[in-house]
Amino acid sequence: MPSKVDVLIVGAGPAGLMVALWLSRLGIAARIIDKRTDKVFSGQADGFQARTLEILDSFGIGERVWKEASRMFEVTFWNPNSDGRIQRHNRAPDNVADLSRFTESVLHQGRMESFFLDAIAASYPHPANPACQIKVERMVIPTSLSIDEEKVDDDEAYPITVTLRHLSEEEATPAQRLSNLNDGLFRSNLTADNVPSTIEHTNGRKDMREETVKAKYVIGCDGAHSWTRNTLGKDFEMRGEMTDFIWGVLDIVPITDFPDIRNRCMIHSASSGSLMIIPRENKLVRLYIQLTEVSAGGGRVDRSKITPEVIFKAAQKIISPYKLDYHYCDWWTAYQIGQRVGDKFSKLNRIFLAGDAVHTHSPKAGQGMNVSMQDAYNLGWKIGLVCKKILRRGILDTYELERKQIAKELIAFDHKFSRLFSGRPAKDIMDETGVSMDEFSNAFNMSHLFTSGIGVDYKPSVLVAKPAEHRIVKSHLELEADKIALRVQAQSTLFLATNCKPGMRFPSFQVVTQSDARPWQLHHKMPSDGRFRLVVFSGDISKPTRQRLVNNLGAWLSANVLSKYPLVALSPSADPHGGTTKFQTDSYPSIIDVLLVHTAKRADVEILRDLHEVYHPFDAKLGWDYDKILVDEESYHDGNGHAYEGYGVDPEEGALVIVRPDGYVGLVTTVAEEGWKEIAKWFQGVLRPV
Amino acid sequence: MPSKVDVLIVGAGPAGLMVALWLSRLGIAARIIDKRTDKVFSGQADGFQARTLEILDSFGIGERVWKEASRMFEVTFWNPNSDGRIQRHNRAPDNVADLSRFTESVLHQGRMESFFLDAIAASYPHPANPACQIKVERMVIPTSLSIDEEKVDDDEAYPITVTLRHLSEEEATPAQRLSNLNDGLFRSNLTADNVPSTIEHTNGRKDMREETVKAKYVIGCDGAHSWTRNTLGKDFEMRGEMTDFIWGVLDIVPITDFPDIRNRCMIHSASSGSLMIIPRENKLVRLYIQLTEVSAGGGRVDRSKITPEVIFKAAQKIISPYKLDYHYCDWWTAYQIGQRVGDKFSKLNRIFLAGDAVHTHSPKAGQGMNVSMQDAYNLGWKIGLVCKKILRRGILDTYELERKQIAKELIAFDHKFSRLFSGRPAKDIMDETGVSMDEFSNAFNMSHLFTSGIGVDYKPSVLVAKPAEHRIVKSHLELEADKIALRVQAQSTLFLATNCKPGMRFPSFQVVTQSDARPWQLHHKMPSDGRFRLVVFSGDISKPTRQRLVNNLGAWLSANVLSKYPLVALSPSADPHGGTTKFQTDSYPSIIDVLLVHTAKRADVEILRDLHEVYHPFDAKLGWDYDKILVDEESYHDGNGHAYEGYGVDPEEGALVIVRPDGYVGLVTTVAEEGWKEIAKWFQGVLRPV
Repeated sequence: MPSKVDVLIVGAGPAGLMVALWLSRLGIAARIIDKRTDKVFSGQADGFQARTLEILDSFGIGERVWKEASRMFEVTFWNPNSDGRIQRHNRAPDNVADLSRFTESVLHQGRMESFFLDAIAASYPHPANPACQIKVERMVIPTSLSIDEEKVDDDEAYPITVTLRHLSEEEATPAQRLSNLNDGLFRSNLTADNVPSTIEHTNGRKDMREETVKAKYVIGCDGAHSWTRNTLGKDFEMRGEMTDFIWGVLDIVPITDFPDIRNRCMIHSASSGSLMIIPRENKLVRLYIQLTEVSAGGGRVDRSKITPEVIFKAAQKIISPYKLDYHYCDWWTAYQIGQRVGDKFSKLNRIFLAGDAVHTHSPKAGQGMNVSMQDAYNLGWKIGLVCKKILRRGILDTYELERKQIAKELIAFDHKFSRLFSGRPAKDIMDETGVSMDEFSNAFNMSHLFTSGIGVDYKPSVLVAKPAEHRIVKSHLELEADKIALRVQAQSTLFLATNCKPGMRFPSFQVVTQSDARPWQLHHKMPSDGRFRLVVFSGDISKPTRQRLVNNLGAWLSANVLSKYPLVALSPSADPHGGTTKFQTDSYPSIIDVLLVHTAKRADVEILRDLHEVYHPFDAKLGWDYDKILVDEESYHDGNGHAYEGYGVDPEEGALVIVRPDGYVGLVTTVAEEGWKEIAKWFQGVLRPV
Repeated sequence: MPSKVDVLIVGAGPAGLMVALWLSRLGIAARIIDKRTDKVFSGQADGFQARTLEILDSFGIGERVWKEASRMFEVTFWNPNSDGRIQRHNRAPDNVADLSRFTESVLHQGRMESFFLDAIAASYPHPANPACQIKVERMVIPTSLSIDEEKVDDDEAYPITVTLRHLSEEEATPAQRLSNLNDGLFRSNLTADNVPSTIEHTNGRKDMREETVKAKYVIGCDGAHSWTRNTLGKDFEMRGEMTDFIWGVLDIVPITDFPDIRNRCMIHSASSGSLMIIPRENKLVRLYIQLTEVSAGGGRVDRSKITPEVIFKAAQKIISPYKLDYHYCDWWTAYQIGQRVGDKFSKLNRIFLAGDAVHTHSPKAGQGMNVSMQDAYNLGWKIGLVCKKILRRGILDTYELERKQIAKELIAFDHKFSRLFSGRPAKDIMDETGVSMDEFSNAFNMSHLFTSGIGVDYKPSVLVAKPAEHRIVKSHLELEADKIALRVQAQSTLFLATNCKPGMRFPSFQVVTQSDARPWQLHHKMPSDGRFRLVVFSGDISKPTRQRLVNNLGAWLSANVLSKYPLVALSPSADPHGGTTKFQTDSYPSIIDVLLVHTAKRADVEILRDLHEVYHPFDAKLGWDYDKILVDEESYHDGNGHAYEGYGVDPEEGALVIVRPDGYVGLVTTVAEEGWKEIAKWFQGVLRPV
């Protein structure tokens, strides 16, 4: 008998775990399988970008990474001088100031996977679904997948059938070890995937347990060699190109007289290739080392030539005349630089691909794990809320619309950056085949907005109400976008909140709670709990006209919006920053969470006297909720957040901003009555009314 | 056969657990017993003061409290107006600005106990003592205690013999429940202790397992009813007085139209008594409620009159005309206000008392748990390092010297504050038996330095080298202090670091790591790992004369100080903020940790080229330690810590500061050669040379 599950996730790396975390928080019945025996223990991805840390923080696990990680603040560029000897050319900040409260950090992927597993476990028991619990099922591979296309529009159907095979430990352990050190070659693009051969090898064996699963949705987070993608056929093949550049990676505790070993460094040697230094946690340092003597020119790479010794010797040559040695090596791997991206991210909005399964590139800019987790972060709440019948199913269209664009930008960035870094430094201005070091360093410095993830700007859709003039048709991708955009009713008025841009993430500034004067990053009032947020920038509510307007808005919201979209049991804890709860503090009346940010003096406002109950919802057991009214003013000990200035809102005008459950701005409109219908329209396009 | 243990701790409340945490970090063989079946789950103490949070942070658990706790920023004073109706009289900050990076916070004691248990478990396996592990042994009481006085000066002896009895669950469960709600009356000073009756009741019973333990040290952290103290006899009786004031305590989720329910409030009603509101985590609010109708006048309190209903009705009366109701009550208790303190904190420096066992007072200023944990924090490292033969045994004298003074200050503070708060408000200036509301509010505002714990200023001793002129004999206590002070050789020169005062805690300011530009609170470079710290404020080391001086100091330290006090395996992780470690990163050569804080431009300094190895110790397996050289300069993203200004050090002069393992300043002297001998003398007085 086949079992049933709402969502089946294939692959328990960072992308798969991010989807699982979302679904665990929303109480969705889901399973997550992985072909390996255990999580990653060393090596692999290590870069955390600012936006990723914000996202992890919204689940309450950002601080764990932030605390353990090595943070990078400065990058130094080392180029050959006129004698061909490397020397420090210049220093630059590793992060642009004020983009985020987080900065680029480094910690190995295995720790992140642990934090995900802890956070998923912490979601249970879930109030909406006490029986379900997502646990990673290891040593399991899918062996067949089919979809009943006639049922894809039926909410109640489980149109996908997947066969799963449970492997023995022996079958699940990669056999490609080349040395007695931990290596990542079996995951590298220098190696073919072992799933097809494992399937073939175990076909018909009686010790292999099989089961059939019926699922509403399947998400392939199974990496660059994705079995899910391969099974979906030719339309899903990735396109792009490989280069001849081969790079090795070493995680070591270095013993060296190179002076910048605890800085991020970009070293171009005169003729021995390039080296990137990434200082890591626990005294580890990651070295990315160009292997100029192992070429992929015109054919397959001879993998037997790639050993830790060969990679280390190449590093010594590049960094000379400085000495480099080590006692402890934690992990090593090698890869061939290439950029490939899939054309389709989803089949019939029922089967989805995320992460390396749809885009691969070189790892040096610390993007891979981040973009993969952000794919999954974009997808998880949409599938979860569709399963709960809160969100319209058509919203699933926006996954490919939003994330394919990012994948293409990533590929374009990596294409440029990896060639500049792998290229031989130009000897002088006449050396046309060499790379200009100034061009390289400028390209690096210009890339921060993109690499931090803060620059992400999603296309217009029902979820992103840009003003009409932003929807000029330019390309095939944009044509597609426009098809979706045509369904959009609501329109944003951008000047009202110049730093809250529809399609971009809502930024965070410090505000102070009206009730207890505690300073908060506004992001901390917006955890990833599946709720939409309506931020009311009301201006000075101690003025009678403002107060009246805001209370009229409250009455209108209450009658016309919130009541249409009541809260279903959504999330185990309203606030991951609130610690353990003895009882649900989630007394909100609606899936839409209303946050009021005003500019009156805190002492001039009395919550119960002055403000409509929509801003302080009442619960018969818990009394009023005092946590939703915030003030933009000086705090007692932590300075002034200047939030209105930060969000670009004029206190005299005010603004209403809709923030999606993933923290991206959906709509900016006026707090005056003309804006209210935009709010109603936006939610009408996105949510299913009760 | 009796078993042996270095330290036996009686009582696993906050004080006992703090000692256990210290000893676990230092790898000492210790046991901790408690008479109850489990840790506290609700109610009891809840206040965390700034210094306590700094201390917890030095063990890596401050952030857990900080994240979960309710933080208090503002206090409002409510007094009767001329009609006798309460009204908001004024607002004041709950914390003085810039005392600490932490502020007063509230979380229930049970969470703190959990964090302690986690932190103790995280100390193992301990490199210095892989076999030992401290675990709380519950349902165990001591039944006899004796000390062989002839052996107290013998390092190798176990002069104390204790008999322990293992109780059944039934025997260990307090029987005094008055309602079906959790109450704390069985711990209240309205109730006698049950240990003597339990001992009597179980004498001779065969189901009670007994064992004999030989210990080097015993620490009584067994609360206000301390069995340990009682067993030590008359000399150890506490002295002080009780008042007639009876107060009740309720932890509820209130439903009320009182506008300041999420603020700390001090309410004096006209004639119904006083009420303090403490907003807590998870929507809980603690109410301290004066019970004017339950008097202790002239005899014992009739406990049967004290029920949650009586307490709640009293609260409703005080807070009227505002309405107060609740659906959920988490815990309640009652107590009689009194202040008592013990005269002796130790017997022969082998048996010690800490926390409520030597000082009791009323709970409203949130001091009890803090002073108790700080007693234990003062004692733990001293006993631990004496056990390891690192510290001279005579240092144990300083426990009573330092902590009895604090206990007396606490008692004096509470005596004044509780009478002002329990007193009837004066009707007018002629009302001499009433309390002036301005006097009360001023007293509150003046008390912050004391209540925060930052004001603690220990007496001169070998551990606290004050200048000679500070040692004027004033009282019996000071005479004692002077007896110890006479042994002091080293002398401080205060003007060199005007904000690093010998006897007070070394404050924390932001500095930046030379090697990687990361901003750090200097406290985060000083974890509670048992090491002494020598902070070298060198000034501008890019100037050749300064650089030479600092390197000469390094060579001298290396030859004359550090080599005398080599590191023994001390602590499981060098840095509780560094997360999990795959290998020991503790490559330090000495029990004395040297931190260099300079004012040169970061870019003008090269660690290996410019600085003596004492500032970047070398380890054959791990290379150089790059974490000990810090810069007082603008960081890339977190502003400028202005550390020299904060510490009160003139960059042209510089300074050397010794910081004890508990973070208190031991010595301030000059970085010039005259200062070096003070350093040597100070350590000579404190440490045993190898």
